[in-house]
Amino acid sequence: MRNLLLTLCFDGAAYHGWQVQPNALTVQEVLQNALKSVLQEEPDLKGCSRTDAGVHAHMFCVSFHTQRQIPCERLVNAVNHFLPPDVAVQNCREVPEAFHARYSCRGKQYIYQIWNASVREPFLRSRALHYWYSLDADKLNEAAAHYVGSHDFTSFCTQDKREIGSFVRTVTQAQVKREGSLVTFSVAADGFLYNMVRILTGTLLYVAQGKIAPQQIPEILAAKDRSLAGPTAPPQGLYLNRVFYEEAELHA
Amino acid sequence: MRNLLLTLCFDGAAYHGWQVQPNALTVQEVLQNALKSVLQEEPDLKGCSRTDAGVHAHMFCVSFHTQRQIPCERLVNAVNHFLPPDVAVQNCREVPEAFHARYSCRGKQYIYQIWNASVREPFLRSRALHYWYSLDADKLNEAAAHYVGSHDFTSFCTQDKREIGSFVRTVTQAQVKREGSLVTFSVAADGFLYNMVRILTGTLLYVAQGKIAPQQIPEILAAKDRSLAGPTAPPQGLYLNRVFYEEAELHA
Repeated sequence: MRNLLLTLCFDGAAYHGWQVQPNALTVQEVLQNALKSVLQEEPDLKGCSRTDAGVHAHMFCVSFHTQRQIPCERLVNAVNHFLPPDVAVQNCREVPEAFHARYSCRGKQYIYQIWNASVREPFLRSRALHYWYSLDADKLNEAAAHYVGSHDFTSFCTQDKREIGSFVRTVTQAQVKREGSLVTFSVAADGFLYNMVRILTGTLLYVAQGKIAPQQIPEILAAKDRSLAGPTAPPQGLYLNRVFYEEAELHA
Repeated sequence: MRNLLLTLCFDGAAYHGWQVQPNALTVQEVLQNALKSVLQEEPDLKGCSRTDAGVHAHMFCVSFHTQRQIPCERLVNAVNHFLPPDVAVQNCREVPEAFHARYSCRGKQYIYQIWNASVREPFLRSRALHYWYSLDADKLNEAAAHYVGSHDFTSFCTQDKREIGSFVRTVTQAQVKREGSLVTFSVAADGFLYNMVRILTGTLLYVAQGKIAPQQIPEILAAKDRSLAGPTAPPQGLYLNRVFYEEAELHA
């Protein structure tokens, strides 16, 4: 049986995240419908991660098995024809039968965009957090540097009954950059807990406001207490940016 | 009486252009309503240009007279509070009483964005033309260079009864740039005829398709015949980017 890996890009403003829900529109639902129209079957889709309502993806990976022999390039064009304009399949490739978009994933990179100016930017209205008070990227980087490494991120995680196992994650990158009025926080890790990037971001905003000092981040991590970290930043600034797999797992 | 000059930025996707119309929502209407809420009077707004439905503006200028003494900075914040999220006032300044956003305008720059890739870009879905076939920026620049100078642009203008006077305009810049898959055509002139930028763009697309050779542009200009130029490119790729005034006219 063929196992296909799709790479998507979507503007999540209109969606209640990736995962199918009974009473709300999700990206998985529109992709399932488009694939059903093309393949005349309903494949079981494995997404690389859950995403919250309003969160975007520059890259989101989905794998599924199919008996159909449609060539990858034709599948991309055909599926895009049935998808709404805010979702696009960018690539399709055949992967080994055991590959799974979520379980095979070795890491991800997210970015969080902040429009840091007194006047809002109409073109970023559902694509960045609008934050008025001037952000000092150096100070935020001082705090973000403490995120890097293997830590228990309980303090940076929304309680979620679905979450089982270890709360230890290894952050390999945590960086703040300013380009004009646009401030971007990039964070890469081997995995992320529920709301983790939004809480990492909200904590940086508390650092900006002087409510938390950069050097307090290690204590907050050590305390494993959600109430010590900053608030959960709103979803519209968040983008899943890259998804990492091992080359060996992608090839038969 | 104070004369105020507002600088706006708007995502035009939801609007039928700038100018108030009886049966469609326009940017002028939402600005008028917001100003009425703030000033408790209905100022007579002068926009720097007409814009078509679906066209955007990184910069759009509006002037109006008012008796109100509200400081400029407070006006910006208050008006933005009443505007929808796809329109923002970025600046307000006091200008001499004779200043008029349209008649005082000495020139404008537009950009036209083309997403040139086989797969569409969800984040540019109402903000660029999606064009599949590979565009050669050098060839387009060869054609665009012929737009520069003082010419009669009748061939590049939609017939419009409102248009009176000369069809001669002086184009000071006409340039195509590629950054990755995004191709941007920038054009500046002392003034533009109805649909002129969209027809200049559509003609470049005909050049890309080999239907018009770059060296034919001078003949098309000389013929003063709309049927010889390319089609009118769709509105979603067009942005009013800059509006030029003489410094002397901006100061009392």
